[in-house]
Order: sequence, then structure tokens, then C-alpha cells
Amino acid sequence: MSKPSIPKGTRDFSPTEMMKRNYIFDVIQRSFRNYGFKQIETPSMENLATLTGKYGEEGDRLIFKILNRGEKLSSALKNIDASTSQGKIEHQLCNEALRYDLTVPFARYVVQHQNEISFPFKRYQLQSVWRADRPQKGRYREFYQCDADVVGSNSLNNEIEFISLIDEVFSDLQIKDFTIKVNNRKVLSGISEITGEKDKLIDLTVAIDKLEKIGEEKVVEELVSKGISASAIEQLKPILQIKGTFQEKITELKGVLASSEIGMAGLDEMQAVFSFFEKQALKNAKLELDMTLARGLNYYTGAIIEVVGEQGTSSLCGGGRYDDLTGIFGLKNISGVGISFGADRIYDLLEEKDLFPDLQVHTTQLLITNSGDNEQQMLVLASAFRREGIHTEFYPDASKFSKQLKYANANAIPYVIFDGKGNHPDSYELKDMHSGEQHFHSFNDIISLLKK
Amino acid sequence: MSKPSIPKGTRDFSPTEMMKRNYIFDVIQRSFRNYGFKQIETPSMENLATLTGKYGEEGDRLIFKILNRGEKLSSALKNIDASTSQGKIEHQLCNEALRYDLTVPFARYVVQHQNEISFPFKRYQLQSVWRADRPQKGRYREFYQCDADVVGSNSLNNEIEFISLIDEVFSDLQIKDFTIKVNNRKVLSGISEITGEKDKLIDLTVAIDKLEKIGEEKVVEELVSKGISASAIEQLKPILQIKGTFQEKITELKGVLASSEIGMAGLDEMQAVFSFFEKQALKNAKLELDMTLARGLNYYTGAIIEVVGEQGTSSLCGGGRYDDLTGIFGLKNISGVGISFGADRIYDLLEEKDLFPDLQVHTTQLLITNSGDNEQQMLVLASAFRREGIHTEFYPDASKFSKQLKYANANAIPYVIFDGKGNHPDSYELKDMHSGEQHFHSFNDIISLLKK
Repeated sequence: MSKPSIPKGTRDFSPTEMMKRNYIFDVIQRSFRNYGFKQIETPSMENLATLTGKYGEEGDRLIFKILNRGEKLSSALKNIDASTSQGKIEHQLCNEALRYDLTVPFARYVVQHQNEISFPFKRYQLQSVWRADRPQKGRYREFYQCDADVVGSNSLNNEIEFISLIDEVFSDLQIKDFTIKVNNRKVLSGISEITGEKDKLIDLTVAIDKLEKIGEEKVVEELVSKGISASAIEQLKPILQIKGTFQEKITELKGVLASSEIGMAGLDEMQAVFSFFEKQALKNAKLELDMTLARGLNYYTGAIIEVVGEQGTSSLCGGGRYDDLTGIFGLKNISGVGISFGADRIYDLLEEKDLFPDLQVHTTQLLITNSGDNEQQMLVLASAFRREGIHTEFYPDASKFSKQLKYANANAIPYVIFDGKGNHPDSYELKDMHSGEQHFHSFNDIISLLKK
Repeated sequence: MSKPSIPKGTRDFSPTEMMKRNYIFDVIQRSFRNYGFKQIETPSMENLATLTGKYGEEGDRLIFKILNRGEKLSSALKNIDASTSQGKIEHQLCNEALRYDLTVPFARYVVQHQNEISFPFKRYQLQSVWRADRPQKGRYREFYQCDADVVGSNSLNNEIEFISLIDEVFSDLQIKDFTIKVNNRKVLSGISEITGEKDKLIDLTVAIDKLEKIGEEKVVEELVSKGISASAIEQLKPILQIKGTFQEKITELKGVLASSEIGMAGLDEMQAVFSFFEKQALKNAKLELDMTLARGLNYYTGAIIEVVGEQGTSSLCGGGRYDDLTGIFGLKNISGVGISFGADRIYDLLEEKDLFPDLQVHTTQLLITNSGDNEQQMLVLASAFRREGIHTEFYPDASKFSKQLKYANANAIPYVIFDGKGNHPDSYELKDMHSGEQHFHSFNDIISLLKK
């Protein structure tokens, strides 16, 4: 029989990996709660119709669909022939699908439960999502997202608080060197307006979003291929090259976008956010205005936020404001703003920089060995230690002591008690696995020692 | 546009429901860690071949299968015609499926990672599972299981520790009235042996497992329909009617099963477990020998455990020993024993008995209202409270105060600070939402007050 395996792009998580992942989730969750976000969960499956058409054509293709069962399946199969398109086939064979992100299910939740919700609604959600993407380093088919959103408030105070929260989370994770890039969709709209390509806003933003990755030349090629006029591209170039501090960029852009009402509104929003943090310093984050930031997503309407580590590597967190998200489910005029932490990339960064703290607190502190003679007493002793809050294991089998000590080492258990070989009544022989020292101690002394 | 909905048998969890669910998971997880279990996670999807054939025909039907994509899908569709059976169709259209329980993926994990694991391996896993069952009260298509297992140890000490752990978990949940039912598959084997129906063990156990639900008459009908002989059924009846204490039942069964080696071995195992708890009292659990307990699952080979609430209602936890689980993936002679808590049923019981504690500790403690005048200062004040560990919200919009207070009430926020209307420098007007009282306090006094 060949060794079993798991689907491409999915992962098993070992005990050590789980401890590290939980650490990241705990830090993020602590800040979410500290800022008043409340947790919800939505089902792993949504109706296929809830998800399709929300992520673009490419996104629709990447949604994992669940095969119908029974009668539904057999009757669907009868209706399929060689001429049926793949998209149609999927909708005939499947009514349900795995969620692709947390934002669309959240929008669905808000609309479905609107009468139970007291707005503004501050929710967080830590759940996995599934995408049938080609797996590669750092990209998986099942991965966790950690999202917080506020819906039902137009105030820029939310953007400010999200930036503070991001600063808190990464600082708590001991990451010192990171940049929060900020842009505003209205500024992008302003740019498209003054370049005379108002109707090509999406093409324009999708292309300039790639500036850092593919360089100016390729971006220009893409713009040409999308039918953006040569004069518009010429007007665009100096805008994309604006350099300087946050404030300098705003000032320069105010000159360029003076004739665009929406562009100026976007700059005012960025100015307000930036001014707050000029007076109220962030712990570690550098705040940067990045006009090329568009994050590919079509639904942002205001602020756009992205966090990168040193040397501007991959995105650790991203988000923005979307004025019309619940509109797709029939609930108009509910503005939302939110962020999403990428747990996998944060994990990789902490690993690379060796920033994980000692996480042994949740693991076994004490192993009681088994000589085969005093099992009843040793089981009772293990219970007594556990009642005192010491995570304790009693080795279940009377195996060789060397095997039992090997188990303690393999599981990083720091202390071992030797079962019943002492002449000391009411005391136990305790081995410190780190130093190798072995001494007799009373029950209470062991508890004090282990609680240190 | 019609209101959006979610697939049948799935659920959204509101913030209040999440707090209650997390409470249950936290209690269970604390005990798992206390006993030295280490957490792992496996992917939501497994290869379909990993899952099929492990849960019986009915189980295979209930597995959610994931539609293949692209080329794989189109070529599969070409091979299907009216004569293809549904089971075959599923295997042609799908290579992946959602996990049906945590045990089979765990067995797969152990085999796949056997070289990284130091046995005995004590793992726990809190993850959801999916079954395309007909939804009904208390039965969902997506639900959580909380499993702990030990693999690689034959010792009965594991069974003893699991019973202690179950007692600890339900006692910590403030459930006082519950029974841990114990049986042993070897006793069932012994019974089939002495009734002369050794080859019909599965039919026999599946039928008698239903005794409590459907009564003796229907069980006899089922046994007849499965071809169990009349004489065997006659011999079975008195065994099923054995009454008394744990010890009395063992003694009686020892008489009946004297000629069956395997039956006597099972009784010895139960005797050992029972004797331990005779000397070492359980906190709240009643221990009961239940010869009708088989739990339908075909893979148990030793102990079988089930926990029921008062009046023997639905199963809150179940488990047992399976000597050959990893054998299905090619790794022989690794014995396992484990238990699984049913979070949904525990939730319903705690709700029904009003046993959930006050869980507001994780929610917002302080709301700072927004007058529109001092937003910058109030944002800074909110940050200052958060740094002191007070979960704080600043109301983002300068809405009417009545609306802001309504928000505090709707979210059960116990204290509100009124933004900047006082003549007192460095003090804040604090409203106790419970008593309705309003007084001026310094920043430090508010922290002391809220930390109480």
C-alpha cells in the first residue's frame, strides 16, 4: 500500500506548527477584542450563487464547488452534453461551494441578519478560505484569513483606528520593521478623471497596481493594450513618479488633481488620517502614501491599505473601504471598512526572523514514568499535579526507562518524576531534563519549582 | 432581490453564540492540554480515496465531494453515460472530499508522518466535519468535533485517564448529572461467540446498540431479518436484561461468558477500569456498564465509551479503542484509543440548563461617545484605555447621543464616557449603564473601577 497523501496545496499542521499558528491568532484576536470587534463565524459552504460573480472571471474559476447528491445529480447529468460550457456544467452539478474569502460571506451575513445587528457593526472572523489556485511557495489552496470590519459608519475614525490596530498587532508580534502603505480609491478616480480616461478606471488601477512588480515599461505596455490613449499615459507618468514624504506627496498631488473634485476629496481623507498620526506617533509602523496601491480588488471606494515587511516584500495585511459591499445582496448605503491579516505570511516572517517566543507553556511540564509497579498511585499522583495546574502525563506503558526518557526529550517535557524507586516516603525523585540533575522533592516543592 | 440564505444544515454564529461556543472549546482544550495532548490540524479536504470505504455504504453516500476542475472535469464528463452508476460518477467527477470525521484523517496523519512522531502520540484536534445527512434538530451538515486520541499504547491506563478527563471536562462545565457508559467490544465478541453467531458480530452489535432507542421487540425483529438464529436470540435475551451495579454486572457476565476467552478478556479490562475508580472517586460522573453500547462504529476493538446527560438523553461524548485503525493505511499493530466531544449537544445542554457563565469579559467594557468636537483627543483616550487592558470603543460617528447609548445597550457595554462636556480638567464623566449613575472620575480611577 502506498503512503497516504493529502490534496495538492493543503497542509497538515504538527503540534509545533499549531502552537506557533495559535500564537499569531491569539495576538491578532487580542487586538481585535481590545478595539471592540466581536467574533462571528459563517459556514464553510455558501450557496454557489452567493459567491459567483463577486471575484471576477478568474475568481469564479478558482472557487471549489461541491457536487450535488442523489436525484439532483442524476437529473443534472441527463441535461449535460458535449456542447455545454464548463461554467454551465458547474452550475448544473453544484449548488454549494467553499468560501473564497471572508468578505463576501460577511456581506451576506450582514444582509441576512440586518434586523439583529446594531450598527455600526464591528465584527472579526478567523476562518479558513479555499482557492483552487496553482499552489506555490507561500500560496495554498486552504489558508486562514483574519478579518476585522466595521460596517454602517462613514467616519474616517475607523480608518485611523485600523491603522492603530495594525501597528499594535505587528508591534506585539515583535515585528519592528514594517510599512503601512495607504492610498485612496478617490485619488485613483481623480487621476483617471484628469487623464481623460474616466471610463477606464478599473483598467488603469489594475495596471498601475503592478508598477512595483513589473516596472513602468510593462505597465505602459498594459495600458496601451487596454486602449488607454497616449496622451493619458503621458499625463500619468509624472504622477506615478511623485516622490517624497507623505505630506510632500499630498501637496504635490493637490496641485495635479486640483480640477478633480473626487480626487481632492480623496486627498483630504488621506490628509486627515496622516495628520492624526503626525500628532499621535505610531509604535513601529512607517506610514507611506503609495499612489500605485490599488490591490486589484474592484470593490474598494475609499481608503486602500496594505502592510509590507522590510524591503517591501509580500503583503502581510491589507484592506480598505467599500461603500457598496452589501449592495450586491440588496442592502444599499451601508459603508464598510476592514482589514485582513495573512496568517501564513506572518508565520513565514516570524520564522525567518526567529521572532516566535517560547511557546512551551501550553505543553506538558511533567512526565511521570511507569515502572509497572505503582500504576494506580502514579495515576492518582498525575491527577493531583493536574489539579494544581501542572500539565502532567503519566507514561501509559511500563516500557524501558530509556524509552520513556526519550519520549520526554522528543516532546520537550522539562521535568520527569521517577516512579517509586526512592526510600524517601512522601517524596519523589525529580529529574531536570535540561541540566540532567536529579533530586528528591516533596509534592509541594515540585509544584513551586514547576510554577516558577 | 431576495434575501440571501445559506445551505441547508449549515449555520451562521452570532457574536453571542461564538462566545458560548468558544467557552466550551476552551474548557475542553484546557483539559486536553492538562493531560498532555498536543494539537494538530488536518486539511478540510482529503483525497476522496482516503475517505471512501471507511464509514460503510451509508457513510460514503454522506461524504461531501468536491468537483474536479478544468481538463480533468471535461474528460470525466465525456466518459459518463446513462449507464454509469452514481458511485462511479462521483469518483470520476471528484478527487477530493470534505472530511467526515476527525478519526480517519488522524489515522492518515499518523501513517503519513510516522517518522516524525514519537509514540505514544497524544493528539487533540478541534475542527469541523461535514456530513450530507438530512438536517434535523441538533443535527447539522457542518459541525465541530473535539477529539483526543492516544496511539501507540496498549495500556488500559489510557482508558482510565480518558474517563478522568471526561469527568473533569463536564465538571468544569458545571454539568453535575451525567453518566459515563462503558462497554467492551471483546464482551460483545464473547456474546456472539457463546450464542454461536461469531460471524455475525457486526449485525449483532449494530442491532443491540439500538436497544435503548427502539426497544427489545424491534431489536429482535432486526436480528431475525439479519438471519440470526432463534436459539441465538433466546440466549441473547437474558444477557441484555442483566441488571445491577457495575460490579454485579461484571460478576453475572463472568458466569455467562466463562467459556469465551475473548469475552473474559473484555470483562477483565472493564474490571480493571472499574476497580481504579472504586478507589479513586470521580468528581461527578456516574460510571455504568452498558452491555448494549456498541456505538455503531465498526472499528472499535476494546473499550467503548459514551457519555449521556440526565435521563440518558443524547450522546455528549463518545469513544473507544481501535486496535487496527492505521492498518487501513498500511501501518499495522498501532493501537489507538480516543474520545470525541460533541460541542453542539453540549451547547444545547448548557443553554437548556442555563449553565453558561458570564462571558462578557471578552467584550467591550467602555464606550467613549463622540460629540464631533474632540475626536482626536477621544481617539487618543481610547488608545490609552486599551493600553491599560480595558477593551474600549470610540463611537466612530458624531451621531445623536441617544443612538450612541442605544449602541452601548445593544452591545452590553457596561460603561460609557461622555466626550468632553465636563468643566473638570483631567476628569471624565462616566455612566454606569447598569445603575444609570453618572459621575466624574480621573483616568486612573476609571481603570481601577473597570478592572474590578
